[in-house]
Amino acid sequence: PNDKIEYENYFSRTLLDRRTTVYILFSNLNPLVTLSGGEDGSQQPEVRLCRLCHKDVKEYMSQTEKVTLIFLGVELQLSTLNGGILKEEDDDGLVAWFALSIDSTFAEQFKQKHEDCYFLHPPMPALLQLPEKEAGVVAQARSVLAWHNRYQFCPTCGSATKIEEGGYKTTCLKEDCLSLQGVHNTSYPRVDPVVIMQVLHPDGNQCLLGRQKRFPPGMFTCLAGFVEPGETIEDAVRREVEEESGVKIGHVQYVSCQPWPMPSSLMIGCLAVAVSTEIRVDKNEIEDARWFTREQVVDVLIKGNQRSFFVPPSRAIAHQLIKHWIGMNANL
Amino acid sequence: PNDKIEYENYFSRTLLDRRTTVYILFSNLNPLVTLSGGEDGSQQPEVRLCRLCHKDVKEYMSQTEKVTLIFLGVELQLSTLNGGILKEEDDDGLVAWFALSIDSTFAEQFKQKHEDCYFLHPPMPALLQLPEKEAGVVAQARSVLAWHNRYQFCPTCGSATKIEEGGYKTTCLKEDCLSLQGVHNTSYPRVDPVVIMQVLHPDGNQCLLGRQKRFPPGMFTCLAGFVEPGETIEDAVRREVEEESGVKIGHVQYVSCQPWPMPSSLMIGCLAVAVSTEIRVDKNEIEDARWFTREQVVDVLIKGNQRSFFVPPSRAIAHQLIKHWIGMNANL
Ligand SMILES: Nc1ncnc2c1ncn2[C@@H]1O[C@H](COP(=O)(O)O)[C@@H](O)[C@H]1O
Ligand SMILES: Nc1ncnc2c1ncn2[C@@H]1O[C@H](COP(=O)(O)O)[C@@H](O)[C@H]1O
Repeated sequence: PNDKIEYENYFSRTLLDRRTTVYILFSNLNPLVTLSGGEDGSQQPEVRLCRLCHKDVKEYMSQTEKVTLIFLGVELQLSTLNGGILKEEDDDGLVAWFALSIDSTFAEQFKQKHEDCYFLHPPMPALLQLPEKEAGVVAQARSVLAWHNRYQFCPTCGSATKIEEGGYKTTCLKEDCLSLQGVHNTSYPRVDPVVIMQVLHPDGNQCLLGRQKRFPPGMFTCLAGFVEPGETIEDAVRREVEEESGVKIGHVQYVSCQPWPMPSSLMIGCLAVAVSTEIRVDKNEIEDARWFTREQVVDVLIKGNQRSFFVPPSRAIAHQLIKHWIGMNANL
Repeated sequence: PNDKIEYENYFSRTLLDRRTTVYILFSNLNPLVTLSGGEDGSQQPEVRLCRLCHKDVKEYMSQTEKVTLIFLGVELQLSTLNGGILKEEDDDGLVAWFALSIDSTFAEQFKQKHEDCYFLHPPMPALLQLPEKEAGVVAQARSVLAWHNRYQFCPTCGSATKIEEGGYKTTCLKEDCLSLQGVHNTSYPRVDPVVIMQVLHPDGNQCLLGRQKRFPPGMFTCLAGFVEPGETIEDAVRREVEEESGVKIGHVQYVSCQPWPMPSSLMIGCLAVAVSTEIRVDKNEIEDARWFTREQVVDVLIKGNQRSFFVPPSRAIAHQLIKHWIGMNANL
């Protein structure tokens, strides 16, 4: 669901209580999930978002002090349309999605009534258990909710703000505030660009992976860091790698990106070719960084041999970058 | 200047009043510049940043209520080192750069003493007159200054904040504020990712350019828009093009990026291949959008024939994207 084009027309009572409208519930930035499948023992149970409908949540909706409602978009669900029987007048095949964040008292109440559901807690690799589409929905909702959580006051004058445009804008309540003159980013959710890079040894057959103290023992992954004001993506890659590991970078190439709702990062994945090899780890930033050979990485990633070290799960962009490199290298 | 690695060690009295330290001055987010060259009539005069030294600015530095000081980095200037004669003990070839923003009263005083200097005002194509390195320095300084300008209060609790780490962090002054527990982006400058895209017609020989009402008459450029929370770069390209022009996009490819300090955008330039051709302009977002043929664009960009329309100047990423496409196409 990403089609916010005309949401102001849709974001109305009619949309909120449509039969097809989907609500996902959050408590303290954690989405409500359930385990599905696996009952006959033949399949691993899988984590899924709970898709609630209006009647499941309507008792909370009026308590605007204790809940936050975010519009996530509408999608055209052809299956509904092609089903043929339009049961209600408003059944035009459009399915609206909302996120509803409730306070901890409501969350307790809800869990008591729905025992098969729970709120998916950090650490965040848990989020990676969700199917890709659901992870995207959670990323969008979580970023906006985290923003409301931390940005309740106007940074320009310190006054209270009100939420508008389905959750995507806050407006200062002080009439003569400078933030109301012209368009300012103070009113919009943050999206923090982060570079994450697969660093290649000049010989093309090794890559640089590092670990932070807070990682599980044995886990290594790509280096990463926030893009600073005034910097290009390519410069940020060069600066971060040199700061963290002492390795100097030449050519940088964009590969792909991934929204990462912790709380609102956009992970920009790159390949970076080293022009020096000596590692000097900055212990303030990371705990360790090492060159790993192609064979070592293939062992872990393809053969699943995780005795020596392991990398993040396959939905993480770091995993994809490392895999991309193995594939590339194989073609050389 | 981008090497902030160890600035906390450097950012000290000694660094501030070194003979080699460079200060650039800002008033109301506008950098102080001068016209250089061209005196003998043989050359067009060119806009350059005024590089001041400590004695030029020291009278303002102590007035911390009315000025903001931002550390921009240190660079190793080999010319100084190789010059041979190390005049002072601290002459290690490292040149530090700072931005100093002064209030309008100070700015008036300064201009009266230095008649050949002036503050470069928006509209911002003016910034594009600066040489690339200087434009980068201004982008960095302007983003951080604009952030301090609009973010003087803690968005989490509304209290006043203090500036730290050479200008790159603000910390809430309320002792028990939630923003002080853990690391939060409330403390760091914003970098807002924006997608800007050269849209190719499915036939490969036309591109889609649009214009906003506020543009100078006749100017057309690439479509652009902010990346939203939870979105990838590629999805943002598809959403923005469809919202603004009604054209649907298939394949998207990253080309290059450019920091754009208005006030803190990171422009992410992409090529986007259209899979539909009908244009339906959203008049709330843009005024016009049209397909231009390769010949029309070559006429304007290469032959300098600007009768029918024109595009932004060559330092703008839009110009580079359009040029990239012409080059690409020529090789087909
Ligand atoms: N971070 C942001 N800063 C300013 N405007 C934003 C931001 N995020 C979304 N917007 C929206 O983008 C519009 C301006 O877009 P543009 O025409 O691309 O400058 C504003 O009117 C806002 O509705
Ligand atoms: N937008 C931001 N949000 C959080 N931390 C930031 C941000 N920008 C810069 N930082 C710095 O990045 C550090 C965390 O980086 P990382 O280890 O990549 O999570 C923080 O301790 C901050 O010093």
